[in-house]
Amino acid sequence: MRALVIDKDGSLRLREDFPKPKPGPGEVLLKPRVMGVCSTDLELAKGYMGFQGVLGHEFVADVIEAADDAGQPWLGKRVVGEINAVCGACDLCLKGLREHCRQRTVLGILGRDGAFAEAFTLPAANLHEVPDHVSDDEAVFTEPLAAAFQIVRQLTIEGRPYVTVLGDGRLGLLCAQVLGQLNATVRVVGKHAEKLERAEKWNIKHRLLADVGMRRDQDIVIDATGSPTGLPTALGMVRPRGSIVLKTTVAERAYEKPIDLSPIVIDEITVMGSRCGPFAVALEALARNDVDVLSMISRRGQLAAGPELLATASQRDVIKVLVTP
Amino acid sequence: MRALVIDKDGSLRLREDFPKPKPGPGEVLLKPRVMGVCSTDLELAKGYMGFQGVLGHEFVADVIEAADDAGQPWLGKRVVGEINAVCGACDLCLKGLREHCRQRTVLGILGRDGAFAEAFTLPAANLHEVPDHVSDDEAVFTEPLAAAFQIVRQLTIEGRPYVTVLGDGRLGLLCAQVLGQLNATVRVVGKHAEKLERAEKWNIKHRLLADVGMRRDQDIVIDATGSPTGLPTALGMVRPRGSIVLKTTVAERAYEKPIDLSPIVIDEITVMGSRCGPFAVALEALARNDVDVLSMISRRGQLAAGPELLATASQRDVIKVLVTP
Repeated sequence: MRALVIDKDGSLRLREDFPKPKPGPGEVLLKPRVMGVCSTDLELAKGYMGFQGVLGHEFVADVIEAADDAGQPWLGKRVVGEINAVCGACDLCLKGLREHCRQRTVLGILGRDGAFAEAFTLPAANLHEVPDHVSDDEAVFTEPLAAAFQIVRQLTIEGRPYVTVLGDGRLGLLCAQVLGQLNATVRVVGKHAEKLERAEKWNIKHRLLADVGMRRDQDIVIDATGSPTGLPTALGMVRPRGSIVLKTTVAERAYEKPIDLSPIVIDEITVMGSRCGPFAVALEALARNDVDVLSMISRRGQLAAGPELLATASQRDVIKVLVTP
Repeated sequence: MRALVIDKDGSLRLREDFPKPKPGPGEVLLKPRVMGVCSTDLELAKGYMGFQGVLGHEFVADVIEAADDAGQPWLGKRVVGEINAVCGACDLCLKGLREHCRQRTVLGILGRDGAFAEAFTLPAANLHEVPDHVSDDEAVFTEPLAAAFQIVRQLTIEGRPYVTVLGDGRLGLLCAQVLGQLNATVRVVGKHAEKLERAEKWNIKHRLLADVGMRRDQDIVIDATGSPTGLPTALGMVRPRGSIVLKTTVAERAYEKPIDLSPIVIDEITVMGSRCGPFAVALEALARNDVDVLSMISRRGQLAAGPELLATASQRDVIKVLVTP
């Protein structure tokens, strides 16, 4: 079958001869309807985590095959799916930290072929049915939108805090929308006026990074830059005893020079890493039209376009690239 | 007067001609009885924060002069003192974050001459009287012990967590003692068997770093190493969704190569900076003999020994160096 693959030599290529997967115990086979390109895909293609295999972890798909009873009820359904496939038995799974399972595989990221293919597998336990009135183009945002909602699970928003979302890309604009609905004063700060202007119609304040002073006066700063400069910038903006939520993961070699971490200690900053979030909450927000994702779609392409899709996604005027099989 | 000074050229030297300070409004003049050498002093001497002036921020002293009514009641008292001199009027002071005052000076660290001298000044508001039955040698540990207690103000210790204190130096051994009295399973991990053995009589588990696996199974890790390797080591030990408390501040140039921060995001670690703590709590612990500080005194010296005092404090078998005028 056709698949967009990072090969053993680390190169990204479209293959037409990739073996079609078979669902294992508890798993289903999925046929993607629409897929999304994420910054993590771009990082993986640069060598982050040394991943080999099929890329892609944002998707809406049809369930076309079930290995056993676990998958049977899902046959024919239109679904999105959580990306961590877990063992359910390790100390972390038993502690309720399933997304952090020590044996986990992660769709298109760690030890598991991803969604940029004609078909792929996931455990049935990972699936969420998409409500009928949520379109494919909306549903494909479930995974990154859930990641934005994860911030709200980790932070307590009270006393109308000043919140800066750093980054005007895919994830930054989702975080800004999620946080903008809470009792907080939110601004999104980025480098691209043409991306930031989307915030206008959401009634969210937006500023160009060059116009923002490093005043250490923000209660909370979200780093959704996807850049190694995100953390130092956040440290320049957050107030003493404030919080920084880190969403950025970049390949280690991206850090050209050491970051001065002493402000974390001197200003007693709390830095929280934040990764995957609650799919059910994200799907509900999409179903209620609480979040505008359609305005963020910049380009569409077909899987056959191969590596070019990722190249498109890193262009400066592009927010979200959707892919069809 | 005699003072141990970092001069304008960045060199550390003993001066005999340093001008005796005069207390400003609200301040008192203090004559030190005993002073302590801290790792921060060693870092400052290497260029950290670009400090110039008299070093020293750990002390027990007599109040010998008061500038005005604020200091009058303190005359003749034996005191310890908080090291942040604050404005009381900026946004952070008004928010209750006085230690983070935007206009602050910090004794022997930032814009204020320190205690390694025949006399020095502090605001009367910073002083705490030392109870009679707490000796000078004990009282001089109030500042670092307060810093250890700050961890307990920042973290919620519940469910008998596994806690690793990284670092067998001055601060690490204090943190281990403070945390060891809580409902937690505490171990202190370091590189020096001769320092770690102090933990034996406090009934605190101790291990050599070389003997400890990086198993990502600790709920909480305290970095009290004073070394740029502390954070990467902590990241190897802490469990997903666990907490790291950073006590280490080092000169920026100490970071020889970038630290891979992606585990913070992937494992959703919380990294909290932690600095100064509650003097009243520390003094009470000393008064109750809850913490054994006397076993940590390795060497004594006189201020006249000058730069040699700091050299002594960085020797591998030395925990605490006390200084007398």
